Amino acid sequence: MTAVGDAMYALVERLYPLCRSITGDGVRATLEIVGEYLPLQVHEVPTGTRVLDWTVPQEWNIREAYIADSTGRRVVDFADSSLHVLGYSVPVSATMPLAELRAHLHTLPDHPSWVPYRTSYYAPEWGFCLAQETLDALPEGTYEVRIDSALTDGHLTYAEHVVPGQVADEVLVSCHVCHPSLANDNLAGIAVATYLARALAERTPWYTYRFLFAPGTIGAITWLARNADRVQGASAARAEPGAGGRVEHGLVLACAGDRGGLTYKQSRRGDAEIDRVLRHVLRGSERPHRITEFTPYGYDERQFCSPGFDLGVGSLCRTPYAGYPEYHTSADNLDFVAPEAMADTLAVCREAFAVLDRNRRYVNLSPYGEPQLGRRGLYESLGGRSDAKQAQLAMLWVLSLSEGEHSLLDIAERSGLPFDTVAVAADALHKAGLIKA
Amino acid sequence: MTAVGDAMYALVERLYPLCRSITGDGVRATLEIVGEYLPLQVHEVPTGTRVLDWTVPQEWNIREAYIADSTGRRVVDFADSSLHVLGYSVPVSATMPLAELRAHLHTLPDHPSWVPYRTSYYAPEWGFCLAQETLDALPEGTYEVRIDSALTDGHLTYAEHVVPGQVADEVLVSCHVCHPSLANDNLAGIAVATYLARALAERTPWYTYRFLFAPGTIGAITWLARNADRVQGASAARAEPGAGGRVEHGLVLACAGDRGGLTYKQSRRGDAEIDRVLRHVLRGSERPHRITEFTPYGYDERQFCSPGFDLGVGSLCRTPYAGYPEYHTSADNLDFVAPEAMADTLAVCREAFAVLDRNRRYVNLSPYGEPQLGRRGLYESLGGRSDAKQAQLAMLWVLSLSEGEHSLLDIAERSGLPFDTVAVAADALHKAGLIKA
Amino acid sequence: MTAVGDAMYALVERLYPLCRSITGDGVRATLEIVGEYLPLQVHEVPTGTRVLDWTVPQEWNIREAYIADSTGRRVVDFADSSLHVLGYSVPVSATMPLAELRAHLHTLPDHPSWVPYRTSYYAPEWGFCLAQETLDALPEGTYEVRIDSALTDGHLTYAEHVVPGQVADEVLVSCHVCHPSLANDNLAGIAVATYLARALAERTPWYTYRFLFAPGTIGAITWLARNADRVQGASAARAEPGAGGRVEHGLVLACAGDRGGLTYKQSRRGDAEIDRVLRHVLRGSERPHRITEFTPYGYDERQFCSPGFDLGVGSLCRTPYAGYPEYHTSADNLDFVAPEAMADTLAVCREAFAVLDRNRRYVNLSPYGEPQLGRRGLYESLGGRSDAKQAQLAMLWVLSLSEGEHSLLDIAERSGLPFDTVAVAADALHKAGLIKA
Repeated sequence: MTAVGDAMYALVERLYPLCRSITGDGVRATLEIVGEYLPLQVHEVPTGTRVLDWTVPQEWNIREAYIADSTGRRVVDFADSSLHVLGYSVPVSATMPLAELRAHLHTLPDHPSWVPYRTSYYAPEWGFCLAQETLDALPEGTYEVRIDSALTDGHLTYAEHVVPGQVADEVLVSCHVCHPSLANDNLAGIAVATYLARALAERTPWYTYRFLFAPGTIGAITWLARNADRVQGASAARAEPGAGGRVEHGLVLACAGDRGGLTYKQSRRGDAEIDRVLRHVLRGSERPHRITEFTPYGYDERQFCSPGFDLGVGSLCRTPYAGYPEYHTSADNLDFVAPEAMADTLAVCREAFAVLDRNRRYVNLSPYGEPQLGRRGLYESLGGRSDAKQAQLAMLWVLSLSEGEHSLLDIAERSGLPFDTVAVAADALHKAGLIKA
Repeated sequence: MTAVGDAMYALVERLYPLCRSITGDGVRATLEIVGEYLPLQVHEVPTGTRVLDWTVPQEWNIREAYIADSTGRRVVDFADSSLHVLGYSVPVSATMPLAELRAHLHTLPDHPSWVPYRTSYYAPEWGFCLAQETLDALPEGTYEVRIDSALTDGHLTYAEHVVPGQVADEVLVSCHVCHPSLANDNLAGIAVATYLARALAERTPWYTYRFLFAPGTIGAITWLARNADRVQGASAARAEPGAGGRVEHGLVLACAGDRGGLTYKQSRRGDAEIDRVLRHVLRGSERPHRITEFTPYGYDERQFCSPGFDLGVGSLCRTPYAGYPEYHTSADNLDFVAPEAMADTLAVCREAFAVLDRNRRYVNLSPYGEPQLGRRGLYESLGGRSDAKQAQLAMLWVLSLSEGEHSLLDIAERSGLPFDTVAVAADALHKAGLIKA
Repeated sequence: MTAVGDAMYALVERLYPLCRSITGDGVRATLEIVGEYLPLQVHEVPTGTRVLDWTVPQEWNIREAYIADSTGRRVVDFADSSLHVLGYSVPVSATMPLAELRAHLHTLPDHPSWVPYRTSYYAPEWGFCLAQETLDALPEGTYEVRIDSALTDGHLTYAEHVVPGQVADEVLVSCHVCHPSLANDNLAGIAVATYLARALAERTPWYTYRFLFAPGTIGAITWLARNADRVQGASAARAEPGAGGRVEHGLVLACAGDRGGLTYKQSRRGDAEIDRVLRHVLRGSERPHRITEFTPYGYDERQFCSPGFDLGVGSLCRTPYAGYPEYHTSADNLDFVAPEAMADTLAVCREAFAVLDRNRRYVNLSPYGEPQLGRRGLYESLGGRSDAKQAQLAMLWVLSLSEGEHSLLDIAERSGLPFDTVAVAADALHKAGLIKA
């Protein structure tokens, strides 16, 4: 666990300096690094492409940006931190008094040493973000401002990685890759997703797992628009599982590395299988955690759970967005995330997917009275003892509730037995020909 | 609020002295006074008319009634209070010893200075109600008793007032007008209904509001019998709202003026829209209040909620019937009700109907992913800030839950946002063409 | 109650010494004694008969069994207690050193003076059960062991007693008769069942009550196999009650005589009518009690509630199996059960079946408004009094909720009125022609 935590932390460190946005070379560089850990299929979608209600915007790239004082000293410099420029700033090259410049400066008066993170994707603006104390130290006077950025027809970039499963039904794991130098939001999510994909590939999982690395909102919307067959009519697919290739379950990973307890935000449906699995795993663990209701604000579960798709997609965070003062500031830095926190997030994902992958509904083929387990070597032959073992009890529970309606997770929850004990009992009964899938 | 409270109190004062019963000139005089505030359609239904399982009884009128002692002094006199005579007393003119008279005298030994309210509508009886201390002071001896009443074929009287709405579907507001000099039960209810009708007419409401001023039980039954098209098959109408002219919701007003907290008694259905609206308004307010389950005892909700009709009609009281010692006694007098209490009842009715009138189900016309609110000027264009405003959040909630199933009230309750915020958001989305009703 | 408690205790005393098992003469002798109290139909099912997934085993009988030391002294003797022999022991006649014998000896080290109860029905074994302190006192050396038992093709024996009801639909009351000298498990259950049958016959009950005295597991399975028409498709029968002759409800009686509080274990369905009745009766009483969820471990409810049958059969115990240290040991003796405890179990069964027998659904024939109860003499004619009586309130509740969906038990629970008050009100309304069954 320490090793994998350290490995994820090292990946976060590599990605941290890059200037990411919803398009541009920062995203490409990020995906290139992730691609060293995991083969990625990278998609480039041209500016102007209609995607659902949206349009892929122009691509934004930036070479340099600074504010210099009258002596030429750069008092704010993009070279120091990608946060210093308002995301998607249009180019500017001008000299102006501080009084005029102020309208373009963003600070956090309550945290005077932190630099805020701000963007203006869809309204043409330019601006700088800086510490309040930096601003306070600036004398009145004239400043040179320069943002050497370009907004041009180009592409929106996202990437996928698929871990093939025994069935074509898919589990979608998604993380946003559009935030600049913010460690918890969302480099930790990217790192956990990367190592989760590697772990799942160790043995062929039941479901096919699709990992999506895409810019927030517009990236998820672009992916949804281009994958209608996987997600549209997903409700219908639920009625006939096994239609194949549909997204049956999903998880959005964000804020995966801070030292707070885990938070699982349920899907819009609230009783999707992924919701039940995460609740079961978190409640069954010793971890402090929170289970929260769906809200239509947050990360890309907003898109996956929009009413037309209504996918069974929840979101796993540690401290949720806007739940910590460092959120969307320069204080969400490499010190704010911890290897052991990322390892813990990864461990919960693995536990949850281990349950999801084994969660089946069976039909008891001998439903009239109990089948004679002893004859089949499934039951201790020496009767009369009061210490009925959990394993035997689990068999009785599986037999009792397997009429096709209850899943193994239902049985685990109703019986109070661990999921694993129930799944092992089901395997034994299945081998003995007493239940069928 | 003080002004309207005082106005309602003044109406109660005018109505207080009249001797009302389930039929007769007392009801007519009452409706004549209410008619000065509100145009009323008065209905007269002849004695003997079959109404559901009942028959309209003979009309009862009374000129005078007294008990006089041997000196001719009137020791109990109807002229002092309409409560002194057993309601629907048959005429009597006799002289008898106190011992024999006692069988016809009703007192409240636990409250020796109070006069009880008693009636005998369907069994021919005569009697007097008096204070226990008056009775105790009577020397044995012979008394003259006289009740100059008449039970004759006549009519049962009730009245309606309609506030036309934008749709023909109706909200029924009902109050009983059959109790004599009792201020809280139900002159306060009459006054609140009167001023509620006036307030609703200030601007055309969504629903058509029908106000019913009728004697308890037999009056409600008579109205139901004569309005089968409005109420029968109302369950069916629920399935196809907009059939028009049906009673979709209703509220019985009683005991609306005492100083206790409000009590909302739910309809028999328990989850009717009116129940949800009143629960929402009362729980969302700072008022001490109680929400109680339906019981088949109480006021005319008994009739409206009888299983054949099963209307969504609840009952709003302050302290409920039989919940205070003054109930059905001479202590339910003008001191027992307060202008501010009636004003408060009125305010809750207005709040509730404001919610009911705006509570709609919409369908999101852009349900695949979020629509781009910014492009439509519905969303702050400057992203990355963590202080998402309630108004924007409300828009996301309306979009998320508007698939035709959830009403705005559902959305308000699920999101925890105020109903008004949700309704304003829905208006904005509707104007932008993103949702349809 | 004392008399019936003493009578049941006397029956337990008579049955206690017999060596019962799942087959054999001990069961026959037991049923012969019960037959003195209650006419029984005894069934003998041949060895080898296929019953559901099982096969009726060989019949086991035993004449004597002992361990004798080198002096010929019997240090463990079946003549002292039927518990001393492992149930279904194969015959043995041998001399062996204690070291070798130990593998066949069962003790309870934690309760050194108690003899455990052990069986080996389906694996051919022989063995003795004895007190740990007896074992500890045995010197090393050679012992003679002898079990003069016989496993032969024979029969499995069970018995039925039917109390005919007004309808053919059945209530099954079952108790296991296969345990040797154990008083609470299950001689107390046998005694309570016996006296319950006698009590029910005092007047013709609504349902037909079928009492089953059968060995645990294999006996219940045998009965189910031979009564498919009564139990299979019982779910379907539920949809059309009155199909006749089906088991609609049932109760397994076990551990019915210890001094602990009562425990009702619900059927697999959890909301079967028998579950609701027992919950209502226990919660409405002053008795300490527990209501527990169904588990597929326990007594013969395991078989009756298996998913193919899924009967509405619960289980009533005092302290449940394995819930007391004396369970399945020689300490479950005549001192462990009490006449008053058995009388209390019997009383609860009678109360529950009194509710079950009267629990009907009615249809209000006058559902539009309230019918005029006064005209029919069902209502006090003197109105205006605030002390509405429970009986009248019960009538209003029955009228309000009788649309065919709610049972009288539903109405009692929703109204908070005692079941009996509601049932009496329903009788009155039924006589008056206002409701129909």
